[in-house]
Amino acid sequence: MDYQPLKAHRSFGGIQGFYRHESDSCGPMEFSVYQPPQIADGPCPVVYFLSGLTCTPENFTAKSGGQRIAAELGLIIVCPDTSPRGAGYPGEEDHWDVGTGAGFYVDATTEPWRQRYNMYTYVTEELPDLIDRNFPTQGPDARSIFGHSMGGHGALVAGLRAPRAWCSISALAPITAPTEVPWGQKAFTLYLGRDTDSWRAYDACQLVAASVHPNTILIDQGGDDQFLNQLCPERFKSACEQAGQSLELHIRPGYDHSYYFVSSFTENHLRHHGRYLLKG
Amino acid sequence: MDYQPLKAHRSFGGIQGFYRHESDSCGPMEFSVYQPPQIADGPCPVVYFLSGLTCTPENFTAKSGGQRIAAELGLIIVCPDTSPRGAGYPGEEDHWDVGTGAGFYVDATTEPWRQRYNMYTYVTEELPDLIDRNFPTQGPDARSIFGHSMGGHGALVAGLRAPRAWCSISALAPITAPTEVPWGQKAFTLYLGRDTDSWRAYDACQLVAASVHPNTILIDQGGDDQFLNQLCPERFKSACEQAGQSLELHIRPGYDHSYYFVSSFTENHLRHHGRYLLKG
Repeated sequence: MDYQPLKAHRSFGGIQGFYRHESDSCGPMEFSVYQPPQIADGPCPVVYFLSGLTCTPENFTAKSGGQRIAAELGLIIVCPDTSPRGAGYPGEEDHWDVGTGAGFYVDATTEPWRQRYNMYTYVTEELPDLIDRNFPTQGPDARSIFGHSMGGHGALVAGLRAPRAWCSISALAPITAPTEVPWGQKAFTLYLGRDTDSWRAYDACQLVAASVHPNTILIDQGGDDQFLNQLCPERFKSACEQAGQSLELHIRPGYDHSYYFVSSFTENHLRHHGRYLLKG
Repeated sequence: MDYQPLKAHRSFGGIQGFYRHESDSCGPMEFSVYQPPQIADGPCPVVYFLSGLTCTPENFTAKSGGQRIAAELGLIIVCPDTSPRGAGYPGEEDHWDVGTGAGFYVDATTEPWRQRYNMYTYVTEELPDLIDRNFPTQGPDARSIFGHSMGGHGALVAGLRAPRAWCSISALAPITAPTEVPWGQKAFTLYLGRDTDSWRAYDACQLVAASVHPNTILIDQGGDDQFLNQLCPERFKSACEQAGQSLELHIRPGYDHSYYFVSSFTENHLRHHGRYLLKG
């Protein structure tokens, strides 16, 4: 087996599992998988959820309520961690917005980060391959991806860089222009160095100008989000309009950046992905 | 104002708030209140949720997904804490199953616990009075109560001791016979002393023999719960049968004692209470 089971709970008729494995890209990593009851009848599509700063695989898994919809629709949900942990690099534990819990879904190119902070390869290749080998999925043709905040950035970047690899992409309060805001600039300087040309491959606003996704991108954004200046939804909307990218952007009045926002709109996102993944 | 707001989040169209107040029965206490969108049209009924050992008001609030159903039905949800905190009594912090996080919903009679460990009065009188004075409720005639584990015990005891005070009662994996199992015996010895006669007022199996509730009690119980020997659902079923108490007991195969179980069946309980509370 490629991984070690940590714990499992029955949830909405399916199984919510937590696992650990030795990743080539990132070292020891944990992830969670929800298998809906429909796996008894055959393989199911997979939706990947990428979490935000400071999160582990447990945040979305425990708080989103996504299992209820996944159990209704017949979707597997996979939640990776947000970074390697315990690499021991200088400063790894010193900041909440870089290092542990803040991998930013990039493949680092600077030392020592490049040795283990390769979250882009991890979430787009290594983990999906492991999931397909070990869980009852429908394989590479039935994958979608979404995420929250830093994880929304990761989902948009993954889907725009490889539109054919992901049936649909969506995001909750994503960081859409990381090269232009303090969170992204701090992380990219650390992981990618000062050559800002290399940053463009991880910036959704810049990526969409070069390569659109064939399906509508769904974004929900809290209107009272305390981090709006780091997220820039209107900038992404403009970039999509200029590029001809179909976008469904909902500004939700009164909602903030918390999991109370995420749980309120998770159903909207899983149904969005279900429309593309469940064509039978 | 009787209380201090700590934080608030928009959730499923309503407001999820957290609050602190100075309680007469218990000292400084925190609680959470979910106000559904229907409060814009007038007062709503209240469902109280009592949590289990080690929990704070945040566990159910963050993990149950109950706001979704409360927002659909028009129910306020109130979650008290599970004990006083920081009383400074000897041993208060030494055990996960007595003291902090383990008030067991009794009014203590032993020193020093009787000074602040008065959770029965707190959750059945003081907190509901505060809620009715400060939130748009329909008052004492529109209250129901449920809980999980130790909180299921608390809900059954509250409803069986004062059937007219609670329109409906239900429980997820409740401790139904605390006088007969290690958790209850340890807590009752500490809070109530060695005179076991005084324990009977806090034991659902004994209470139901003396006083039934007019409405059906709903219980969900995980079939693979690791604490079945502390919970005794079959013993409560027998006690209800002997007493003529209407009981709907569901043993749910494969489910454990965790919040993955609680979140899977919270909807079932809120709809149960809605049937009694929403008669219009």
